[in-house]
This record gives sequence, C-alpha cells and structure tokens, in this order.
Amino acid sequence: MPVRPVRPLRLAFAGFGNVARRFAELLGGPYGRILRRAGVSVRVTAIATGHHGLAVDARGLPLTRALALVREGHSLAPLHRGKPVASTRALIATAPYDVLLELSPLEPLTGEPATAHVAAALRRGLHVVTANKGPVAHAAGRLKALARRHRVRFLHEGAVMDGFPIFNLAERCLRGVEFRGFGGVLNSTTTRILSRMEAGVPFDVALAEAQAAGVAEADPAFDLDGWDAAVKTCALANALMGATLRPAEVERVSVREITAQAVDKATLEGKRWRLVARAGRDGRRVWARVAPEELPLGDLLVSDGADGVLVLDTDLMGEVGLVESAGGVDQTAYAVLSDLLEVAGGGGGRPS
Amino acid sequence: MPVRPVRPLRLAFAGFGNVARRFAELLGGPYGRILRRAGVSVRVTAIATGHHGLAVDARGLPLTRALALVREGHSLAPLHRGKPVASTRALIATAPYDVLLELSPLEPLTGEPATAHVAAALRRGLHVVTANKGPVAHAAGRLKALARRHRVRFLHEGAVMDGFPIFNLAERCLRGVEFRGFGGVLNSTTTRILSRMEAGVPFDVALAEAQAAGVAEADPAFDLDGWDAAVKTCALANALMGATLRPAEVERVSVREITAQAVDKATLEGKRWRLVARAGRDGRRVWARVAPEELPLGDLLVSDGADGVLVLDTDLMGEVGLVESAGGVDQTAYAVLSDLLEVAGGGGGRPS
Repeated sequence: MPVRPVRPLRLAFAGFGNVARRFAELLGGPYGRILRRAGVSVRVTAIATGHHGLAVDARGLPLTRALALVREGHSLAPLHRGKPVASTRALIATAPYDVLLELSPLEPLTGEPATAHVAAALRRGLHVVTANKGPVAHAAGRLKALARRHRVRFLHEGAVMDGFPIFNLAERCLRGVEFRGFGGVLNSTTTRILSRMEAGVPFDVALAEAQAAGVAEADPAFDLDGWDAAVKTCALANALMGATLRPAEVERVSVREITAQAVDKATLEGKRWRLVARAGRDGRRVWARVAPEELPLGDLLVSDGADGVLVLDTDLMGEVGLVESAGGVDQTAYAVLSDLLEVAGGGGGRPS
Repeated sequence: MPVRPVRPLRLAFAGFGNVARRFAELLGGPYGRILRRAGVSVRVTAIATGHHGLAVDARGLPLTRALALVREGHSLAPLHRGKPVASTRALIATAPYDVLLELSPLEPLTGEPATAHVAAALRRGLHVVTANKGPVAHAAGRLKALARRHRVRFLHEGAVMDGFPIFNLAERCLRGVEFRGFGGVLNSTTTRILSRMEAGVPFDVALAEAQAAGVAEADPAFDLDGWDAAVKTCALANALMGATLRPAEVERVSVREITAQAVDKATLEGKRWRLVARAGRDGRRVWARVAPEELPLGDLLVSDGADGVLVLDTDLMGEVGLVESAGGVDQTAYAVLSDLLEVAGGGGGRPS
C-alpha cells in the first residue's frame, strides 16, 4: 500500500448532544481508523455545548475527558485554553478550526440558530458538516451559494434518513440527473404508531408506547401533525430540486385523522396507512405535501421494518428507491463521518 | 457561474451493441450537455464492433454517421483513417484514447474477451469503464490492482442493476463501511416469470411470453438456472467484499424447481417466490448462493414492480436497501456516463 500524505483537519462542534457525542466516541475507535486510512488526521479544537459551557484549545482538546465531563454533568470550562470565549457564536467566529460540525438541536420553525452558525463558518471560508435539517430546510440555496462563493463545502447527509446516502448519492453518483419529485416515508414514529394500530392497539396506547420508548417527542404534534416530515421534505426539495420551500408552506394532514376503523379496513384489504411525504414540479413551481395515504402491500413505501423509505423520481434513471432499515444515532454519526471524508477530499474511498 | 477549464477526453468503444449505441446517441443530446457542464469535452476516436468492422480516427469519428452505418448493416471501415488495424485487440492496444468503454457481449463462464480488453487498456495506463459484468465477476481483484498500479480508474457501475448506483455508492458514499454480505433479487426475467405464475399462468407460457418480449435469453438456462444472478453475485462479492469467487463456485438452485402448486400455496399464504442471491462471510471465506426463496409480502426483496433489489448488510449503517424500478438500456447507458464523469474528476456534480 502506498503511504498517503497525512492531512490534518481541525474540528469544531457546535452542539454536543447525542449525535455529536456518539461521533466523538467513535473517533477514538473505528472512525479514527477510517480517517487515518484515508490519510486524514483529526483534532478537535473547539466544543460548544448547550448546557455544559464551551472549550477551545488550538492544540486539541482531550476528547475522552470532554465526554466524561459532559456525561457527569460538569462544565467543559476547565479544558479551555486562551482568551475567554463568550458564546457558541463567538466560538464559531473566532476558534481555530477547518470544519464546523453543526449539531445543535433542531428548531423546526425557524432553523435557527443553526442556520446562523452555518453561515458564519462559511463566511470565514471554513467547511460545514451538519446533521441538523433546519439549515437545509430553511436556507439550502442561500447556504450553498455562500459555500460556492467561499470555495468550501456545506454538507448535510445526516439531515434526512440519518446516515443513509441521499444528498451525497445525488451529488456524486447521480450526476446530471434531474429530480422531478419524490415520495417518502420519512417519519418513523408515525410508521411505528400506525403499525401498532394495525395490530389492534388503540392510537393513544401506541402513542404512549412510542413516547415511553423515547422515539416520540414529548409534544407529539411534531411527529403526528407532519412537522418533522415537512422539515425533511423541504430539506430534500430544496437541496435536490432547487426549491425554496419553507416547512410552513408544505401542505400537512395529521395522522390523527386516521381512525382505528380506517386502519382495520385497510388491513382487511391488504393495505397500509402511512404518513407519506411527496414533492413534485408544477411548471416551475415545486409543490410538497405530507399526508396519510392508503398504500397496497408490496408498495416500496410500506416495506416491513423500514425506518425510512425514499423513492426519487428522475429523468435519466427512472425511480430510484432507497430503504433504510436501521435508523438511529449511530447512523447519523456515520453521516457526519461520511461528509467529513468527502470534505477531506477524494482519498477516502476504496482504491480504484 | 464560473467558467471551468475544458478537459478533453477521448473515448474508445470495444463493442458497439445496444448499450454502446444508446450511449453514443445520447452523447449528441443530454449526455453531451451534462459532460460540457462538467467541463468535459468528449471525442470518440475508436469504435470496434462485433460484426461491423472497426474504425479509428485520432481527430474524432462522426458518431451520427457511425450509428447510421451500423443501423443499416454496413461496415464502419469507410470512417477509418490511418494505418489498418487488424482486430479489437489491436485497436485497444494502439488507438489514441483516454478511456476504454468496454461494452462487448458477456461471456458468463469465462468473462473473456472482455477481461483481456480491460487488462490491456489498464496496462497502457488508460482508464476503463465497463457495463460488462464478466470482468468484475471473474477478475475484479486483479483488475483493480492493475488500475491502482497504473494510477487509473476501472469503473463498472453498469455491471449490476443497470445504472443504479451500487459500486460508486459503496466507494464514494459509504466510505469506511464494511460489507458483511447482501441479499438481492438481481434477475428480472425470473421475477417476471414468477409474477405471471402468481397470476395463474403456467411456467411454459410465462417463459414463452418473456422470450417473446425479448427479456429472456433464447437459451433460458442463463436466467432460470441462476447463471445471470450468479455472475452478478460474484461481481458484487468480489468488488464490495474483496472476494475472489467465480460464477461456477456459486451454489445455484434453478427456479424450474418451483411448481405451480408451490406458487399457489405461497400466494394463498401472502408470500412470494423469488430467485434470491445471497452472500456472506464465514470466517475469512465469502460464500454465495442463488436459490428460490419464499418471502413474505412486505419483504423488501418482493417490492412490486421492482426490476432489481439489493440489500447490503453493513457494519456501520445496518441494512442499506436499494430498489431499481426501471431497468433497461437507458439505465445502463447512464451507468457509463456516471462512470465517465467520475473518471473525469470531481467536477461533474452539483455545486457545493
């Protein structure tokens, strides 16, 4: 094997929740090995958290220590070196790093402060990788233009269907292909609840189960009323179809409209209700809708055990179906790694 | 839009059948536009055919003329300029080109002469793009090593599931991911025949229909007895899992074993028979099998209307499901374009 030149890459975390921590843990294991094999030497130089302060060290922060401090409820402040930094915003604007990992919590209706974080890093001429769907759903076009202007990358594979390749697939493996529209089952909580209703469990019980399992939000409206799917739909439409949709502009029908009787009737007819996200073109306008649909068994959108399904309608390749069976923090952390390898340059793949 | 420097790329065709001709036709239309947008200026400098002679012209062959000659059953010889070239082999060894498009007919049991064509071009330090599964099924490891040694690319997206991104997806979008195995429905002819049997059509009639529609080979053994699926299974196992399997080493069970009674019984139970290709690891050994399986409706492998389904079992991403709904010459031609854009360098994608 030829020895590759090692490329150092300094990372800053904006947000240090589940995905960021899982990514940081795996950097000490398989992710670190994969990056080294790709000739990339990674150092974390800044971490901004929501509730555990922040720390910057140009020489590299001790990650294991940082993870332990946060896990035990302490502040990262003791790890900080150099002049005090007042806020996440100040850290993004001044810390020494090459790639910002924007992993702050989603604010679906505004996409902030994540969008401001992304823009600030891009304006400094620094790359951004995010798993936050907010910036893509609210400002994909503007942020991509900003990245182009500064000749850096803005990548967001983790924004939809965890780490399943969608955005990088479109950019790298479906070049020149035009996306006419798509259909998808993008919210796994509603799929879970509808599947339980198919087994005869009442809606309220199925919802309570999902909440107990930690998969549904405390405020169920985000999942049930289609907000989560609408944000993802915007992210896809804006990034793949050049749309400028906002989540509030997506037509939404809640799964609360689906009665137990409707579920039973569908089951008897060999059909399934699913919360389906669709987008398409109407002339130059891109439309999008999130609504329950009754689908026949055998339809790709009703695949058993799927956590997410996306069917892209293309001009040159017909329908391209993508099915994620395992979705979770590990997969979203992988999306961050995948984007990072893409930022680091073509060298990360299998040879030839 | 910034003006990109134009990169000239000279193409040689080895084989000028359906896929090659469709690719050549589209070069004059959408493919040409996509390549130009990516900053690539393509010129076809050599064409070797099975039954219509060959032609080389360093200044570029007139493609429309070449297509018309072949369509009308004439030889390409009048288009040839320069010293006579005796054979496809001699053309590959001496013609002036940057990328060989190896699109000769498949010889499943040997992979020849396609494998020799690929090796000869790589040894000259020239890139190779193929849609022929033979070289990948028979010699993926050796050819990839050869490409690495000469610092050129050997790409073969069209070898399995037409142009659906599999090999480029694995290399570019699932970096660092290990493929533990896969399951797939890779032969659409058997799916078509089994689907007709589910509708009550006898096997012989279903087979005759498929032959009349031109989707089954005249010798039905290639499809029915699993040879086609075995070749594809080897291509996948060898390219994605580093195996060195040959098609004859894949365990095969013919769909002829499936009786009308078995199909009826499955249908009554809400199940479907499909010819399933599977591979996995047993210690360091990679095993592979192609056999009919009875699958429940809702299983991804039984998706309605799918021309091909592949479920990759990975370490970091769980199961990755890929479903092709439209498979055909257009899709395979796109695979060649997609590989060509990859050869031409990272510049072909959507910006940022």
